[in-house]
Amino acid sequence: MTRYNLEVCLTPAIFDRYADTEAIVVVIDILRASSSICNAFANGAECLIPVPDLEMAREYKKKGYRVAAERDGYVQEFADFGNSPFNFTPERVRGQTIVYSTTNGTMSIEVASGCYRVLIGSFLNISSLERYLLDQDRKIILLCAGWKGKISLEDSVFAGALADRLLKSEKFSSSCDSVTLALDLWKLAEPDILSYIDKAAQRSRLREKGLDDCIPFCHIADSTDVLPYLVKGKLFNLNL
Amino acid sequence: MTRYNLEVCLTPAIFDRYADTEAIVVVIDILRASSSICNAFANGAECLIPVPDLEMAREYKKKGYRVAAERDGYVQEFADFGNSPFNFTPERVRGQTIVYSTTNGTMSIEVASGCYRVLIGSFLNISSLERYLLDQDRKIILLCAGWKGKISLEDSVFAGALADRLLKSEKFSSSCDSVTLALDLWKLAEPDILSYIDKAAQRSRLREKGLDDCIPFCHIADSTDVLPYLVKGKLFNLNL
Repeated sequence: MTRYNLEVCLTPAIFDRYADTEAIVVVIDILRASSSICNAFANGAECLIPVPDLEMAREYKKKGYRVAAERDGYVQEFADFGNSPFNFTPERVRGQTIVYSTTNGTMSIEVASGCYRVLIGSFLNISSLERYLLDQDRKIILLCAGWKGKISLEDSVFAGALADRLLKSEKFSSSCDSVTLALDLWKLAEPDILSYIDKAAQRSRLREKGLDDCIPFCHIADSTDVLPYLVKGKLFNLNL
Repeated sequence: MTRYNLEVCLTPAIFDRYADTEAIVVVIDILRASSSICNAFANGAECLIPVPDLEMAREYKKKGYRVAAERDGYVQEFADFGNSPFNFTPERVRGQTIVYSTTNGTMSIEVASGCYRVLIGSFLNISSLERYLLDQDRKIILLCAGWKGKISLEDSVFAGALADRLLKSEKFSSSCDSVTLALDLWKLAEPDILSYIDKAAQRSRLREKGLDDCIPFCHIADSTDVLPYLVKGKLFNLNL
């Protein structure tokens, strides 16, 4: 039986060492982009357009798009709402195309876009992702969005949670130290994930801005079975 | 009391996010460059010149230097000996300048060379390093050499061991997720470090080539009190 390689890339800044046009890449930005994207599709969004900067978001708004954009915790004056997963309510997103301004998440999606398929992963859709990935005959790379090129604890922990599930199947194997590291973090975090995540730098950043109300929600498994995936710079739900 | 910032950079490929001309950088390449460098000074070497490629090593040899160089486990035909810490015996190195061809270690030294001071760290000199660093009033960055831009388990574990000692002092503090991650790996590894390191990818690479005999030696603390540091591309021992 062929075993497919599983790798974890802890920041998009080193993705060129992993990139492979035959691989499936799962982009992970737990606080908050990948959780928000999953929740948007769970609430019926038709399409999400992730954009890296506010200028692009503003241009889309001028063209009539619905836009989610904030910086430093403030919803931008031109935007319809902010970046918390709670902002992507059914009333706002059902059947809609939403432009979503996010820095780390977008950069990760961009660097992975030359690969065979790009999916968005979070605790919200972890079992759905697991089922999909176990069904594919391809190398898999779990790409953590991190923070400005550095490494984020919460993304690494999620990579460990997903790697743990995939490596229980004989289909996948790994000789990647970042997989080992992520699995060990997940082992430490699993018994009480919210306490563990309390020491993440992003937890403190969000708390200082009063934006940490979404953290428990972002760590609850399987609130949805959506599978956001990338098609020419836009995200759709593969699991309709 | 001023508290100084402690950071861990898990690969030289993202060092530009950490670089600071006021910082002290500790370069970590446990298997094997930083352990070999410490052992060379412990055995009385005067100076080490780390060079990234074999061509440079060959040029130095032509000029009459003593050269340590191997690739894929084979000592290069022009070299005097290989890269294992066991090769840097007192007979070969005492009072000598040694050219040492190493890829990952040299790259890390190069990217850090613009910082205030660059030191070489390993388990061999961990307590000596700890004493020196606790005496400095500066920001500290622990730079893991990793493997071809990727992350290495053994370097991350050592960063955790050293961070653990430094953060016990009130002098240093950290809000860096890579410090948290390294501390947690060290917590898992500390009770039986050789068993833990058994799952490192570099462990397997060395074993396949019959070069893993040095692994226990590279994980014994305090066999020496040397403090290798960088001056214009050359390493000397600060603790004479």
